[in-house]
Amino acid sequence: MTITGTTRFYVILGDPLHKARTPEIMNAYFSERGIDAVMVPAVVDSAGLADAVRGLKQLKNCDGFGVTMPHKQTMCALVDTLRDNGRLVGAINLVRRMPDGRLVGDTFDGLGYVAALRSHRIDLRGKSVHMIGAGGVASAMAMALAEAGIASISLRDVDPARAQKLADAINRAFPAVSARAVQQDAYACDIIANATPLGMQASDPMPCDPTAISPRTVVSDVIPKPEMTPFLIAARERGCQVVTGREMVEAQAALGAEFLGLAPARTTAG
Amino acid sequence: MTITGTTRFYVILGDPLHKARTPEIMNAYFSERGIDAVMVPAVVDSAGLADAVRGLKQLKNCDGFGVTMPHKQTMCALVDTLRDNGRLVGAINLVRRMPDGRLVGDTFDGLGYVAALRSHRIDLRGKSVHMIGAGGVASAMAMALAEAGIASISLRDVDPARAQKLADAINRAFPAVSARAVQQDAYACDIIANATPLGMQASDPMPCDPTAISPRTVVSDVIPKPEMTPFLIAARERGCQVVTGREMVEAQAALGAEFLGLAPARTTAG
Repeated sequence: MTITGTTRFYVILGDPLHKARTPEIMNAYFSERGIDAVMVPAVVDSAGLADAVRGLKQLKNCDGFGVTMPHKQTMCALVDTLRDNGRLVGAINLVRRMPDGRLVGDTFDGLGYVAALRSHRIDLRGKSVHMIGAGGVASAMAMALAEAGIASISLRDVDPARAQKLADAINRAFPAVSARAVQQDAYACDIIANATPLGMQASDPMPCDPTAISPRTVVSDVIPKPEMTPFLIAARERGCQVVTGREMVEAQAALGAEFLGLAPARTTAG
Repeated sequence: MTITGTTRFYVILGDPLHKARTPEIMNAYFSERGIDAVMVPAVVDSAGLADAVRGLKQLKNCDGFGVTMPHKQTMCALVDTLRDNGRLVGAINLVRRMPDGRLVGDTFDGLGYVAALRSHRIDLRGKSVHMIGAGGVASAMAMALAEAGIASISLRDVDPARAQKLADAINRAFPAVSARAVQQDAYACDIIANATPLGMQASDPMPCDPTAISPRTVVSDVIPKPEMTPFLIAARERGCQVVTGREMVEAQAALGAEFLGLAPARTTAG
């Protein structure tokens, strides 16, 4: 990578960032494709965020930025245009800086999940979904599923209030979708999604009981590594179609690159 | 160069920057020394400069920035502390961001020149200087010479009003120094300095007549490339001690690196 006077740049805004892997991933992406661009970490606290964003708007060779903790929610108020999924989720992780300085924000956690399902030729219209987890990523996934036309979703979280809050938000945003918080896993559905970190560690318990899942149910997991979690392995052994966290992350990265103007728009199978 | 979440960064602010060589030079410097830092170009126009600087103040892993056209003068009003040479010249090209976000600005064109003279064990106190040129770099050099204790300086420029303006500014800032604008080159002096671009092109005329220079006069040139300009070659042939533009640029870079916290302070022979 050679940075010259013509190099364009991206930053990732967060605090702390010492463990952030996005700069390495993005710079490898630029380097592999011969793109004259670079991503640098930009550590900023909550008090400084608005000034930092106003400053970035003025830098003509800045094409956008990633947003991570603790700014994903606050950033929604600092962009000029908040796209649908970001608005529904109330959090964004990517901002594109348009040539005139306007900032457009969105999040691709959920849209990447839907794209991964669609790449398996799964038609989401009218489907019933059971989701385990109701945190940030789960919210993005659930809103993207609702937007894609599912009929219903049941949500179970270790924090029942959080599951109820997300169900209420889905019902408000999508009156045609029936969302409800549940205390017991609901196995009678078309798609079961793990949206918790369970499965990252070998010692983790299963997110739900795989032996209760029907072979006709599609099973997905958010964990990108290991790609085949014990949960997905058990589901596949039962004959279920599985969608991995790695597929979700890759679809998310492709959508993000397209959003930032780094890759041509792809036609999505659907 | 691998950019990770721990990488610190610098920018160079200017418009346009497509011909700027500073990012390449600085990134080679970081790479050679194993410094986990990167410099990226940041294109900003005059209308956006104040917002851009306010934004950079908030980025905790930003350690400073270079400033180039058209912002060298404007930047003086945007730093928290304007150091002596920058204040005297009315222009800065380096800003250090302190850990608390305070910005300290200075310029090293002139201080690099004085350091290069001193590295030749030239004692500047009480000396008489004749300078050809009265532009931005000449101002920085003349102010640094005055600060270093010269007795007098004569200034000749193609624009006599510009030479007069610089002479007046030196006399105001340093009452002990006698500065005057002249229309003819004044050869009866200890140091003759070319501070014009004459000598960059092979077809350029000499900045002044080298055959009129005494062998006891030190002759310096700002042109870094070719290092030995026709003017310096002629002066050396007459037996004069010469100080090159490259020595000046290298001393300037060393002082700048020290100012930005990138290199240990050097003891200056004086």
